[in-house]
Amino acid sequence: MSLTLTPLTNIPLIRQGDDLADILLTALQETNIELQDGDILVLAQKIVSKAEGQMVNLAAVIPAERARELARQSGKDPRLVELLLRESAEILRVRPGAIIVEHKLGFVCANAGIDHSNVAGEGDSVEEWVLLLPRDPDQSSRMIREKIQTTTGKKIGVMIIDSHGRAWRIGTVGVCIGLSGIPAVIDERGWKDLFGRELRITIVGAADELAAAASLVMGQAAEGTPAVHVRGFPYPLRESALKELLRPKEQDMFR
Amino acid sequence: MSLTLTPLTNIPLIRQGDDLADILLTALQETNIELQDGDILVLAQKIVSKAEGQMVNLAAVIPAERARELARQSGKDPRLVELLLRESAEILRVRPGAIIVEHKLGFVCANAGIDHSNVAGEGDSVEEWVLLLPRDPDQSSRMIREKIQTTTGKKIGVMIIDSHGRAWRIGTVGVCIGLSGIPAVIDERGWKDLFGRELRITIVGAADELAAAASLVMGQAAEGTPAVHVRGFPYPLRESALKELLRPKEQDMFR
Repeated sequence: MSLTLTPLTNIPLIRQGDDLADILLTALQETNIELQDGDILVLAQKIVSKAEGQMVNLAAVIPAERARELARQSGKDPRLVELLLRESAEILRVRPGAIIVEHKLGFVCANAGIDHSNVAGEGDSVEEWVLLLPRDPDQSSRMIREKIQTTTGKKIGVMIIDSHGRAWRIGTVGVCIGLSGIPAVIDERGWKDLFGRELRITIVGAADELAAAASLVMGQAAEGTPAVHVRGFPYPLRESALKELLRPKEQDMFR
Repeated sequence: MSLTLTPLTNIPLIRQGDDLADILLTALQETNIELQDGDILVLAQKIVSKAEGQMVNLAAVIPAERARELARQSGKDPRLVELLLRESAEILRVRPGAIIVEHKLGFVCANAGIDHSNVAGEGDSVEEWVLLLPRDPDQSSRMIREKIQTTTGKKIGVMIIDSHGRAWRIGTVGVCIGLSGIPAVIDERGWKDLFGRELRITIVGAADELAAAASLVMGQAAEGTPAVHVRGFPYPLRESALKELLRPKEQDMFR
């Protein structure tokens, strides 16, 4: 069976308080997609954060001394660094142009996932507004999923993704930052290979692989689309949580 | 337009000297897929390495002192470690169960990409054989692509992928280790966002995103399939090389 990812191109600009489940159902209808059991909807972090009101006006942020110091080291706006500190559990690396953190949500990423692009406030200069990540992306995924399941009667999965850089490879890739009803990982330990030997060590980051695929389809710039419909995910859907994908700090190879 | 990934389920067990282009053309035909301009074929490293004779019989490998020492530290077979040293430009981390290296091909990975599963030698015990990565995956991709293009008259891309772990996330994901005719990265620096501001810093690892998608479709175990047909890649095909995806050591955030 093929895996098919279809961008939902007719999502309007999202504002605080918008009901994403309703908007997705309308977009699916306009794209002539009828949901089936096992389908997945992948959403860009951006629209979830906007709907949840995670915009912050930088003009209202007062950087403390630590933020001003990290801003000097990184060359970043001190107000942005102040927000980044508030969003982070730990600062891991500071280099010119980049601050790598462990986000409070548990994953490692640059700049605490704070997004400067495609964010407009209400009546203020576009330049002053940034967007924080959703407060609880697993929970956001679950709520959108439940509303769509109730409306359609179909069992689906919902995932929220962001684009992350990698330590030693160039280019961002889509990664899962929250999900509901989709296996985060596939644990193949104990499965047999073609010659009957156990595949002892393989855990597949299936949700991240799907996130990367969806990110490819979304694109990044003005013509990008913030939601993708997926059919043919090759594993049974099940309940899971982001933390299945997060390596415990003591197993982290680089701390 | 949708992105569609279709596993080619009827690839036979590959042996040294097999012509992968011919095998892929047959598999496409049996799957009722007629190649179109812009299509991509994604191949698991395993079948390329086997066709190129990259199997090594561990029984014939004599570990030197450094390999024996790293084997003690990591708990790995000293003969495997000897091969791993020969395949690597640099050893980056040694922990129980894992040796992280910079492979001679330029990327960072565990165990130099040496594969123990699904490898059978000729008449010897299955346990004794391992598989090294292809010697030049960009070149392998190019040769397969050129033969298929000549046969079909269609302009396509070919990519070879492997599964890599991540520093701080659980689960392997598919990554590109060689390609021909596919943009490795999409450089969006200078593109405008929805509000006309420049997206200053985004380079998208498009080939790695596609590799992850294809890896998801391939699966890993006995029922897995080592080749995937892709239609609807959202960027124009162009010449590129693996090295576009490799972060120069001096920009590596973790060395």
